[in-house]
Amino acid sequence: MQTFFKVKTAQEVLTSLGDIKPLGIEGIPIRSSLGRVIARDIESGEDIPGFRRSTVDGYAVAARDTYGASESLPALLTLAGEVRMGTIPQFGLNRGECALIPTGGMLPEGADSVVMVEYSQKMEQGAVEVTRPVSPLENVIQPDDDVKRGQVVLKRGTLLRPQDLGILAGLGVSQVDVVVRPRAAIISTGEELVDIAQKPGAGQIRDINSYTLHGLCVKSGAEPLYLGIVGDRFQDLRSLIEEGLSQSDAVLVSGGSSVGTMDLTLDAFLSFDGVELIAHGVSISPGKPTIIARRGNKTLWGLPGHPVSAMIIFDVFLAFVFRKLLGLLDPAEGMDHVIEAELDRNVESASGREDYVRVKLTYGEGRALATPILGKSGLISTMIEADGLIRIDMNTEGLYRGDTVQVRVFS
Amino acid sequence: MQTFFKVKTAQEVLTSLGDIKPLGIEGIPIRSSLGRVIARDIESGEDIPGFRRSTVDGYAVAARDTYGASESLPALLTLAGEVRMGTIPQFGLNRGECALIPTGGMLPEGADSVVMVEYSQKMEQGAVEVTRPVSPLENVIQPDDDVKRGQVVLKRGTLLRPQDLGILAGLGVSQVDVVVRPRAAIISTGEELVDIAQKPGAGQIRDINSYTLHGLCVKSGAEPLYLGIVGDRFQDLRSLIEEGLSQSDAVLVSGGSSVGTMDLTLDAFLSFDGVELIAHGVSISPGKPTIIARRGNKTLWGLPGHPVSAMIIFDVFLAFVFRKLLGLLDPAEGMDHVIEAELDRNVESASGREDYVRVKLTYGEGRALATPILGKSGLISTMIEADGLIRIDMNTEGLYRGDTVQVRVFS
Repeated sequence: MQTFFKVKTAQEVLTSLGDIKPLGIEGIPIRSSLGRVIARDIESGEDIPGFRRSTVDGYAVAARDTYGASESLPALLTLAGEVRMGTIPQFGLNRGECALIPTGGMLPEGADSVVMVEYSQKMEQGAVEVTRPVSPLENVIQPDDDVKRGQVVLKRGTLLRPQDLGILAGLGVSQVDVVVRPRAAIISTGEELVDIAQKPGAGQIRDINSYTLHGLCVKSGAEPLYLGIVGDRFQDLRSLIEEGLSQSDAVLVSGGSSVGTMDLTLDAFLSFDGVELIAHGVSISPGKPTIIARRGNKTLWGLPGHPVSAMIIFDVFLAFVFRKLLGLLDPAEGMDHVIEAELDRNVESASGREDYVRVKLTYGEGRALATPILGKSGLISTMIEADGLIRIDMNTEGLYRGDTVQVRVFS
Repeated sequence: MQTFFKVKTAQEVLTSLGDIKPLGIEGIPIRSSLGRVIARDIESGEDIPGFRRSTVDGYAVAARDTYGASESLPALLTLAGEVRMGTIPQFGLNRGECALIPTGGMLPEGADSVVMVEYSQKMEQGAVEVTRPVSPLENVIQPDDDVKRGQVVLKRGTLLRPQDLGILAGLGVSQVDVVVRPRAAIISTGEELVDIAQKPGAGQIRDINSYTLHGLCVKSGAEPLYLGIVGDRFQDLRSLIEEGLSQSDAVLVSGGSSVGTMDLTLDAFLSFDGVELIAHGVSISPGKPTIIARRGNKTLWGLPGHPVSAMIIFDVFLAFVFRKLLGLLDPAEGMDHVIEAELDRNVESASGREDYVRVKLTYGEGRALATPILGKSGLISTMIEADGLIRIDMNTEGLYRGDTVQVRVFS
């Protein structure tokens, strides 16, 4: 079941994957919602804080009673009472009166501002001297200053940060609807692979890709599901893929940088009904021997066996697919962790393909220096040494020492 | 038990906390180790890959047998056999012989390089024509190219990334020693606070800080432990702090931006044997009403009640303390997610304190624009709108529109 060789550019692949739909919705406690994606706009059902609060310790006053006050000529007010935290003041202020109020306390009727305790002096017989005037609303939070009833406070497609948990708490949203986490089935192929618990014989190596892909999935907000290692037996591979298709949204088969294994993976993918081949080879280096197929909203990936290549393909395509499955709003330009650096060595690049170059970063004299790490893509150690990646465009023949480059920093 | 007011600069506080020791060590499966901190150097017990591997599909050869080969005058070699993945070739190459080899296959004895299949032609009767010469080691990974036996591949104090899981897998390290996660007890104080499940009455608000602090702890690699809300009763507060001290490495008491509550928290901290007051007030805005105390390797925090202030104090000090407790190597300058932006409005700042200003980022024409968000620190909504923080130095009176600023981007 051989097909024509369908090498695609990164842009062509991303276009083919652009219409992937977000997954379903689940409600979870906000305490577990950090890093999850909000599934619906959150509209406030109430004003926050809901009452007029003081932002300082001091005296609640009517501002007009303090106009003209100074150290030499203080305004003299009558203490009408003390506001207690968390309660409604059982008194109002008449003209010329004030009330002791703590930070966060509710202003009594008749007060519109708060004089800081530093600018006051408590006298005998219930009198208070104020030595600075305040304007209306000074040192006060209005009932709807933080959030207005009906306001959309969080948009669907937003990744939840600590402060977002805070505003949900403030609104009394203890359970929040988030997008279900995509699941990714991870399969390794190759007769040379052994489980990491085993001592490899000569000619064998331990399965590295399952672990790098596991980590990348978790970082992308997906749930990895490890299905194991298979050799070059078509039926074994096919049944693991079948299991992956039934249990997950993306099936990642790594291994198969050799033509024989790639063909096996491709044949296995195409043996399922409704699978459409998107790319057989991508014009990316490293990472060319990649197979991408699709079955409705699910995707199937034949990732290179070389660990570096597999990681880069993940970064370019799978992270994108997971963002789509999560319904994430497109992150604003620059929101990725990208820094500018100066390249400290020439880097060649073939025209007609995108090159991803691992770099090490060093810092000095207020600028970052990016040193290319020129190891083979079979060497995972080059990714350990690297701090990030630079991308060389399809139409660029290379970069020169001294060029300014954008480094996507690993996190 | 009143003490003198001990306002400290951020630098003074960090100096007082600088000798906090890393926590103990626990062994965990590498599949759960992403984002954890390695507790010991990882030294390789073996060479990786451990044998000579091909990086391409082709013919294993002795390079000298291909010297001078060209399309017009190919080298003619005899096919001695085929290498199968994951096995030791049961034959060696004699002068003038070659062997079919897949990507990842082990080179047979007598071979030192691999000719890509594209530059070869299989003839009849076991002959192979090679149309390009190779040099020794071309298209080959040497037994110790990736990792050398005895090499330190990961340093203690490193945060584990996906590629680090990969190299551990490659070395057969299925269980890795990491630093125990710091635990942080979270307590909220204030008569005005109600649980988020409750509808606040007038004068009351829901407990926001427990949730923002929970999120910040998780992001910092710490395990939050929620102990609940207490009012202004000394004994209740003291017993929760006692529980926090016994179960965690840092006790976070938020609330208490009013003098009364701050005094209560301070008194409760100082009622424990061996507690040393580090700061009573910090010269940071927002965040001044902060109490920092220490009992050996454990720290006690009286955080401001205003959500924004509490988050900033966490960011400046607690994130630092958790890095120390995790034994994290000091991150290289610039490794934080910091971007340069142009300020689009003047910002005032009082001399003698550090100011943290929330900013919103917009992107255009290849540069980022930072717009200050000038809301009160009691308003959590200002942190929702913000994309990051800029810091104005103690000795700076303000920043001007057009100034280049460093924005710490929220993640």
